[in-house]
Amino acid sequence: MEERIYNFNPGPAVLPLPVLEEVRDNLLNYQGTGLGIMEMSHRGGAFKKIIEGAEADLRSLLSIPENYAVIFATGGATNQFSMVPMNLLRPGEQANYIISGSWAKKASEEAGKFGEVHLAASSKEEGFKRIPREISLSAQPSYLHFTSNNTIVGSQFLSEPVVPATDVPVSDLPVSGACRCPLVCDASSDALSRPLDVVKYGLIYAGAQKNLGPAGVTLVVVRKDILERCPAGLPVMMDYRTYSEHGSLYNTPPTLPIYVVGLVLKWLLKIGGLAEIKRRNEEKAALLYECIDRSGFYQAVVEKESRSRMNITFRLPSEDLEAQFVKAAEGSGFSGLKGHRSVGGIRASVYNAFPCEGVRALCSFMEEFERTKG
Amino acid sequence: MEERIYNFNPGPAVLPLPVLEEVRDNLLNYQGTGLGIMEMSHRGGAFKKIIEGAEADLRSLLSIPENYAVIFATGGATNQFSMVPMNLLRPGEQANYIISGSWAKKASEEAGKFGEVHLAASSKEEGFKRIPREISLSAQPSYLHFTSNNTIVGSQFLSEPVVPATDVPVSDLPVSGACRCPLVCDASSDALSRPLDVVKYGLIYAGAQKNLGPAGVTLVVVRKDILERCPAGLPVMMDYRTYSEHGSLYNTPPTLPIYVVGLVLKWLLKIGGLAEIKRRNEEKAALLYECIDRSGFYQAVVEKESRSRMNITFRLPSEDLEAQFVKAAEGSGFSGLKGHRSVGGIRASVYNAFPCEGVRALCSFMEEFERTKG
Repeated sequence: MEERIYNFNPGPAVLPLPVLEEVRDNLLNYQGTGLGIMEMSHRGGAFKKIIEGAEADLRSLLSIPENYAVIFATGGATNQFSMVPMNLLRPGEQANYIISGSWAKKASEEAGKFGEVHLAASSKEEGFKRIPREISLSAQPSYLHFTSNNTIVGSQFLSEPVVPATDVPVSDLPVSGACRCPLVCDASSDALSRPLDVVKYGLIYAGAQKNLGPAGVTLVVVRKDILERCPAGLPVMMDYRTYSEHGSLYNTPPTLPIYVVGLVLKWLLKIGGLAEIKRRNEEKAALLYECIDRSGFYQAVVEKESRSRMNITFRLPSEDLEAQFVKAAEGSGFSGLKGHRSVGGIRASVYNAFPCEGVRALCSFMEEFERTKG
Repeated sequence: MEERIYNFNPGPAVLPLPVLEEVRDNLLNYQGTGLGIMEMSHRGGAFKKIIEGAEADLRSLLSIPENYAVIFATGGATNQFSMVPMNLLRPGEQANYIISGSWAKKASEEAGKFGEVHLAASSKEEGFKRIPREISLSAQPSYLHFTSNNTIVGSQFLSEPVVPATDVPVSDLPVSGACRCPLVCDASSDALSRPLDVVKYGLIYAGAQKNLGPAGVTLVVVRKDILERCPAGLPVMMDYRTYSEHGSLYNTPPTLPIYVVGLVLKWLLKIGGLAEIKRRNEEKAALLYECIDRSGFYQAVVEKESRSRMNITFRLPSEDLEAQFVKAAEGSGFSGLKGHRSVGGIRASVYNAFPCEGVRALCSFMEEFERTKG
């Protein structure tokens, strides 16, 4: 194997090396069974152990209570943009959305296909450069949806959105586990990057390909009582109950992606769980933001208190310099630093598996680049 | 690596060894890029080449004309049970289904959620032990759906269903590429096992995990003019146009499963394409059916002219002997021979990648078992 480079891709993204090595070693013969990991029946004992182990480890990492179901779905977060309103939005109620970035906007637009949508908050006017703070729920909210980390612009909710008590009776606050208006979170790009108080949520979903594993599987954690109120007649694979009632084995699930997610969860437990990964992520982000802020050359995109610890975005004095930066970085073994095509600039995605030494190396490279071009 | 055993699993199923080796060798570092195959952006040049190459190779293998789209979807064939009627079944028309097995029945039941369903043929009364021959379309058929290979009972359409000319004007025959009533085929368990005349079909779909690759991706080949008539407002990932208009890259696709499918397609081309794989599959099936038929001990489940070349099902004189057979086979390095839980008996799945020597070895084992227990 030649050398691996520093992978700042926004997703699919870098995976822990021990995970990749274990996948590699089980591709042709899974644990001595004589069958490769991709060639085993999803109904057999070996895979049953894998999927049940992944669920158990996720429950352990996030302290997920028994009254929540864990689901392995497909179609990415984009498919959840439809599944959430199809399952949760009832006639006469409104789907509430906090628009903190492009993905949140897409999610709300998709919900509009299935019923009434209310914009509870937005920072669109500010180019999404901060997390919206003023939240105003509709009269009959079905749920309040937010995107915990905004991959494109590089902002993040550092805690759950706080809903003003004046909008709904206190007992109905979305931050309460027992409320009528559940908090729904697209956590695709920061799931498992820090501890989370699951009981504050009605439903959390995350495409795997940033922090959890490879592309091809979507994790959903949902409070079971919510599922009791889903309408009948949904397309079978768009109905959360199809998954919750069959342990995500109603039909053949994406077995390899689930296996890899399971290994990533074991890796997280081994290194010390979510408290330790939070520490690492904060260390990486602090290093990089400090490097940006102490320079007059690099300019962070997002307001300080809204900055993401996963996707660190910054600009250079000109687009021409940004193109030079990306090219020179690529040549020095830093991949995936080009900002999203819709916003430009530079984006360093430093998900869970991204090593701290890669951030240190990038900081050195940035200082050197500034010395040369600044 | 310890020895690999003979894998008769019905899906996920055996994959070609050279494919597995290539995946293994690119898991940590894809072709010297410094990034593993699961860690690359789906928007980057390397993955673009993979997905475009897979489409080109599929087009080459099946001679798919330009007026057909190739789509990589998720959710398995079961998700197609919904997508087909959601996209194709129009008000005032009927979805026509040939019920040749359990999966066909499930597909027709799902279609009932979205409109009127007409049973065009069925062999349910005969326990699905033959392929239905008499087909009668409804007055205004949206499409005619059939399951080309029935994985559970072990039957197969050896050619496309022939529709009586009396039911619809000749120009509207589903077997014609220009007809109003497209032929829709669930080819999950025999796709690419033989040459196919794609222009006879309106839409073909197949979950990958039998003949095409690992679980987690579903191939769809659909005539483009059909997509022009799909209704607006479908859930975004349930709309075929989301895939056809974005080269299956509207959102992050299951990159690893698509990569593996691409390698399987290259393997098929290398060994001689669909004519050669058909020859191999016929040879394997003939060997095993001959072994069954010349014995008084084993009894084939399906009528001769309806027998599958993919899933070969048979019974022993008693369920007790069947249990002994499965156990003894497992001990001798033959895995996955237990019949589907809904029908019992023995099922040997011998998909494309299953080697002929494995069938010969099973025949020897069967003869020996009969000598001992018969």
